[in-house]
Formats: sequence, structure tokens, C-alpha cells
Amino acid sequence: MNKGLLFVLSGPSGVGKGTVCKALLKKMPDLIYSVSATTRQPRIGETDGVNYFFKSREQFMQMIEEDQLLEYAEYVGNYYGTPRDFVERTLEEGRDIILEIEVQGALKVKEKFPDGIFIFLLPPSLDELKDRIRGRGTENDHVIDHRMNVAVEEIALMANYDYAVVNDEIDLACERIESIVIAEHCKIEPNE
Amino acid sequence: MNKGLLFVLSGPSGVGKGTVCKALLKKMPDLIYSVSATTRQPRIGETDGVNYFFKSREQFMQMIEEDQLLEYAEYVGNYYGTPRDFVERTLEEGRDIILEIEVQGALKVKEKFPDGIFIFLLPPSLDELKDRIRGRGTENDHVIDHRMNVAVEEIALMANYDYAVVNDEIDLACERIESIVIAEHCKIEPNE
Repeated sequence: MNKGLLFVLSGPSGVGKGTVCKALLKKMPDLIYSVSATTRQPRIGETDGVNYFFKSREQFMQMIEEDQLLEYAEYVGNYYGTPRDFVERTLEEGRDIILEIEVQGALKVKEKFPDGIFIFLLPPSLDELKDRIRGRGTENDHVIDHRMNVAVEEIALMANYDYAVVNDEIDLACERIESIVIAEHCKIEPNE
Repeated sequence: MNKGLLFVLSGPSGVGKGTVCKALLKKMPDLIYSVSATTRQPRIGETDGVNYFFKSREQFMQMIEEDQLLEYAEYVGNYYGTPRDFVERTLEEGRDIILEIEVQGALKVKEKFPDGIFIFLLPPSLDELKDRIRGRGTENDHVIDHRMNVAVEEIALMANYDYAVVNDEIDLACERIESIVIAEHCKIEPNE
């Protein structure tokens, strides 16, 4: 049996990774979503093992120590990471898996899975990204400027990715990613 | 303006390249079909410049001499070739072009357009291919065996291609090729 393919969907904060990933999983029921581990508290409606694997700080630190995470990061006082075991088991079973993660984390995953397919989700323009970040409503100008600077730095890392997909419309972005998944399955490896 | 992409659809004789290409062009009106030059007589319903560029033997020989053909071959006493000029103009205009050609010709095009995207159309199985060749009706067993041997040799050349697409159903094969076209447009070049 062939191993599954590892897809990583990443891009700057505010670009719409979560929304696109959700729509994609609806369209492609065979694609498995890589559930992240986190130390943050579950929100109402979130289920352990579906939205996140909810862990105590101690459990999370142990996962780091035992190299059980492909990547992890701290964000607003909480830890988030990608459990290695679930990814590896899914691929061994011959199923494709998709990771929806931040840009820095994606680059760490690339060190461990150089054969993964790395997709960078782009805003239609930087103005549009600013609007989207502003649209969340809760941020002040200083926070927005900081996020924009981070986004520009992250976009500069796009050269490390395999594909760039513009998120102009969710349906179009999904169609492009679905095409990438189909095309990658048709690819002939140079050393085959 | 970005240059268009060059796609080459190839595969063993009998695999259904022509049928798939025709269906694909219907589905993707922006894709330009590379019209071949030939010395054979037009058949009823064929139009010069649409189905083929019909040339005299002298004209064809001159095109070869002037390096106006990306590839050419003799088949049952007639010459067939791909005019370079039409391909280059289409790409310069920023439009994608598709060449539907034999395996040997595709490898010659690859020497001249290493950045082209080479798609190998595969039969679902060798038995299926034999049935399709036999299905044309006019061939005797000796001719069928010869064609099968050639097909097996051609399939061995698949490693020189970028993608393999199984022609199990025309619609599915078209969908895969359309996905390859979309994905290739999202690709980030390593040296960008």
C-alpha cells in the first residue's frame, strides 16, 4: 500500500486558513485533519480529540521532552503543537493528512517531512489582509500594525513552500487546493 | 505578463490521447491546442489550421531544414510535426498550450522545453490497452502484438514525465489533467 501524502496549509494570521481548511475538509471527506494539542481551556462546543487534544501544561511539556510534537509554539500564554504520532499513523494507513498551522511551525515540519507538500495561503492583497485583521474588531492600531509586520515577514518565507494559493474566494481557494491534492497523486517521482 | 505554460499530453498509441484531449479542450476553453503540421491528405471534415496544417512534402522538408518543428516523425508514409512558431507565440501571449503527441516526440520537445509539463496517459491495464488496439478492428494479430510491444517500451519511458494520468474514464482523466493545470499555476518556483 502507498503511504498517504502530508499537506501543510499555512499562511499569515488573518488570511483565513481555518475557514478554508474547514471548507476543504467538507469537500474532501478522505482528507484527514491533523488535530493539534493545546494547553488552552476548551471553549464551549469544542470536543477533545476533534477540535484539539486538550492537555495540561505538564502533559504538554512531557510531549515536548519526548519529541512527540512535530512543531509547537506559545501564543498568548498557551501552547499549541502538532502530535507526531497521529500524523505518522495516518500516513502509514495510506491516508492523506492536512496540517493547518502557522508559518514558523510549517518550516519546522518541513525539516522532519521534506516530502510534505507545503501550501502558502495568500491574501488577495496586503490591504485586504489589514481589513481582515481589523475586522476581528478587538485589536487596537498598535496590535494591527504589529500583526501586519509579522505577516509581511511571513510572506517573505513563501519561497520555502511548494504552492501559493490566493484566498480571494473560499470556494476558489478550496478548488485550487483540491487540484493540488489530485495533481500530487499523479506526480511521477524522479527516482521512481 | 507571465508566460503561458506548455503542457504535453502523451502516451502509447491506443490509450485515448485524442479523445481525452478533445474533451479537455471543451472543458478548458482557455487552453490552446497545438495544431500539428502533416503531409497526409485532409480527410472529409478536416480544416487546414484547425485539425492540421496541411503541407506538401517539400514544404515539410523545408520546415525541418529551417528548424521550424519542435519534433516530427514519419508514420505510415506521412510526416507529422509540431510547428515551433505557433507554440512560442502562444506562450509569449501568456496563454497555456497543450501538445498531444507521441512518446518519442514528447521527449524531443522536452529537450527544447525542459520547463514544460509532461503528462503520460496510461491505460488502466495492458489487457485494456490490447482490447482498445484490437477494437479498432482493422489490425491483424501480428500488428496488434507489435503495437503492444511498442506500448510496453513507451510505458518504460514514463519516468521522464512529470505526471501519470490513468485513462480509466474520460471524465476522470480530464479532471486529473485539469487539476494538474490549476496546480502548476499555483506552483512556487524554487528560484523565485
